[in-house]
Amino acid sequence: MRTTGFGVIDWRAHQLKYVGSGCVRTPKGTLPARLKLIMDNLREIISHYRPDQVAVEQVFVNVNPKSTLLLGQARGAAICAAVLHNLDVSEYTALQIKQAVVGNGHAHKDQVQSMVIQLLSLTGIPGKDAADALACAICHAHGGSGLGKFSSGLRMKRGRLV
Amino acid sequence: MRTTGFGVIDWRAHQLKYVGSGCVRTPKGTLPARLKLIMDNLREIISHYRPDQVAVEQVFVNVNPKSTLLLGQARGAAICAAVLHNLDVSEYTALQIKQAVVGNGHAHKDQVQSMVIQLLSLTGIPGKDAADALACAICHAHGGSGLGKFSSGLRMKRGRLV
Repeated sequence: MRTTGFGVIDWRAHQLKYVGSGCVRTPKGTLPARLKLIMDNLREIISHYRPDQVAVEQVFVNVNPKSTLLLGQARGAAICAAVLHNLDVSEYTALQIKQAVVGNGHAHKDQVQSMVIQLLSLTGIPGKDAADALACAICHAHGGSGLGKFSSGLRMKRGRLV
Repeated sequence: MRTTGFGVIDWRAHQLKYVGSGCVRTPKGTLPARLKLIMDNLREIISHYRPDQVAVEQVFVNVNPKSTLLLGQARGAAICAAVLHNLDVSEYTALQIKQAVVGNGHAHKDQVQSMVIQLLSLTGIPGKDAADALACAICHAHGGSGLGKFSSGLRMKRGRLV
């Protein structure tokens, strides 16, 4: 079972607002079937929340080449879901996300989760993958590429898809 | 510039017939733009040739993790193009392809190209990536999964997409 977290926020008049989050779980099966599941689920999520922009965490896993290839394929399917909806996709490294959310690029995962809860005034604790996704969306809102054109307060929702 | 080869063949009454081949070239650009280009081009190729099944080479590159991740993402986009058209996707290793086409899993690339030309009665020499794609399609026709149900001579076209 592999998990793809997503998080959707509103960024309007310099105010962050939580919209939704969760994760897509992919059971064992053939690679094409799993990629289809990721893409179909994320397309459904995009259709539901209708974000204006998408931000994706730039992963770099070096456990073994097989895992890296698998992760790349899943990431390709997730990005395809976004581009099929003609959405701009920005990418941020874990360091950039932690820097933007906690103020320290080497912050612990717990600190990221705490800041996500605080910044979005959440009443519950989001799952690990959803919290990471929301952190990526906050990073994009706080200074990501393409932000300038929305700084006048146009509505922005952003989802982090992997 | 990265290249994605494709090859389309007909397999009817135990006869192989060349239908088309070529490659999709992806110029430098952002990752999402390049994935979109791969997916859009392959979807166009699928719409044009309308294959019944798709076979993809199982790659395993261990040059460096960054290249493996990039390759995985491109492969994810290619497989997504096929599953978006509800096509079954089979995967074959280079060893399986060479074994099926040349009869020797460790055959040289030139031998694969020669056998592709011979088996499909080509009058010209296909490009390297197109030849590899056609070899993958021939491998699928010669005994790939799901072949049984078509052995009565129904029309089959197969494209190898990466």
